[in-house]
Amino acid sequence: MKKPNNTTFTCVGINNAISILRSKRFTVTNIDLLKNGRAEREKQLTALMNSMPVNHCEKNVFSHKYSQGKAQGIAITFSGNVFEKDIPEYADGKNVCLLVLDQVEDPQNFGQIIRTAECAGIDGIIIPKHHSASITESVLQVSQGAFVNMDLYEVINLRHEFEQLKKNDFWIVGLENSIDAKPWHTIQYTGKTVIVVGSEGRGIREKVLASCDFKATIPMQGKTNSLNVSATVAAIAFERLRQLQEI
Amino acid sequence: MKKPNNTTFTCVGINNAISILRSKRFTVTNIDLLKNGRAEREKQLTALMNSMPVNHCEKNVFSHKYSQGKAQGIAITFSGNVFEKDIPEYADGKNVCLLVLDQVEDPQNFGQIIRTAECAGIDGIIIPKHHSASITESVLQVSQGAFVNMDLYEVINLRHEFEQLKKNDFWIVGLENSIDAKPWHTIQYTGKTVIVVGSEGRGIREKVLASCDFKATIPMQGKTNSLNVSATVAAIAFERLRQLQEI
Repeated sequence: MKKPNNTTFTCVGINNAISILRSKRFTVTNIDLLKNGRAEREKQLTALMNSMPVNHCEKNVFSHKYSQGKAQGIAITFSGNVFEKDIPEYADGKNVCLLVLDQVEDPQNFGQIIRTAECAGIDGIIIPKHHSASITESVLQVSQGAFVNMDLYEVINLRHEFEQLKKNDFWIVGLENSIDAKPWHTIQYTGKTVIVVGSEGRGIREKVLASCDFKATIPMQGKTNSLNVSATVAAIAFERLRQLQEI
Repeated sequence: MKKPNNTTFTCVGINNAISILRSKRFTVTNIDLLKNGRAEREKQLTALMNSMPVNHCEKNVFSHKYSQGKAQGIAITFSGNVFEKDIPEYADGKNVCLLVLDQVEDPQNFGQIIRTAECAGIDGIIIPKHHSASITESVLQVSQGAFVNMDLYEVINLRHEFEQLKKNDFWIVGLENSIDAKPWHTIQYTGKTVIVVGSEGRGIREKVLASCDFKATIPMQGKTNSLNVSATVAAIAFERLRQLQEI
């Protein structure tokens, strides 16, 4: 999938379509719907597509445009801003958790992380404008519609944001495989927490790591020594949820 | 990537190549090495490729054969059996954990699960022969070499294996989103444990689920309600590791 032209995206698949249509955030400019396809039979979709610009496609046309096989008979083109404007102060928030992705560049990982974070009750994801994957159609696609329900923030200067967040009572935890890092489950993720993860190859940038209050590590038990960053996020995000449920 | 012809596979990338070459389990029949590529400069590889059948490729030839961009200048063709023969009794094992994938059909998920399981110290992965993804080149590729260090078992009849495992003091936990399932972190994964996960769409087959001693669930916190199965495995496998470390 190509990089989006400005803020127009096309996503395929029933989950994506349902999430986008349910949300009021985006302007749907076109829906390509395969005649006699799986999406056409999906009742939830039929109701949501009412008064939408639906283009009923013959099989040869649809397959030619969406060859990847995950389309399930629907492709939805929409425009709008996927990012929220400013990170809120969360003045009344008790247990708030924001995730920061530093140098995470693989769209597959980024999309999976949005999906996992949404399932685990993470409140928002912050990415630095110049040091992470941008939001592309692939990212949105992989997230399976979860991006609609996740507050996404793009910031110029992470350390500046950290200072603001610390003023608002957030503690910042960086995931890093270093000697002075504590086992991930010995860190408290209750209250207001920011969790920072880096890329598998390069980790978190040094200056960003220096701004963290705590360092956490997940000790590897095997020989390959490289946990996928989306698996890391799953481990941490559900450890946080465990702690919240055991309060 | 195509389905493997019998037990001959081709995997690309430095991590895969290092794992396969270090292992004694496979017969390496060919290594395509890109001239002046990244893999050629990797010292660990140079030593391992000594006396191996290396085919030094010009850029146009290599790029034509391995177009996906993740090759990093090396492709390794090998043969051998990726499956272990029989599941051991683990008579002396104290904390042993086996993972069962039922109806997990996406090679990307399967590969990621092998990788996550290896990092989390899971002892083996069991797949039913007719109700899960088979081992393909894509699966091995995504596992980033972790398949070499993970005991993989293919079985005809899961319930029969469960009976055997129960005789060998294993408890069987099925991950299932149902009313009578307990929150995942309230289950004990210490001792001898089998963890069964199903596909995202269809879950675990009913009869397989009926053979489980416990049912565990990860309650979804968002609106999308569908956690990727490899993220589920990460959450459970690292919860197990937490329990082991806190004994």
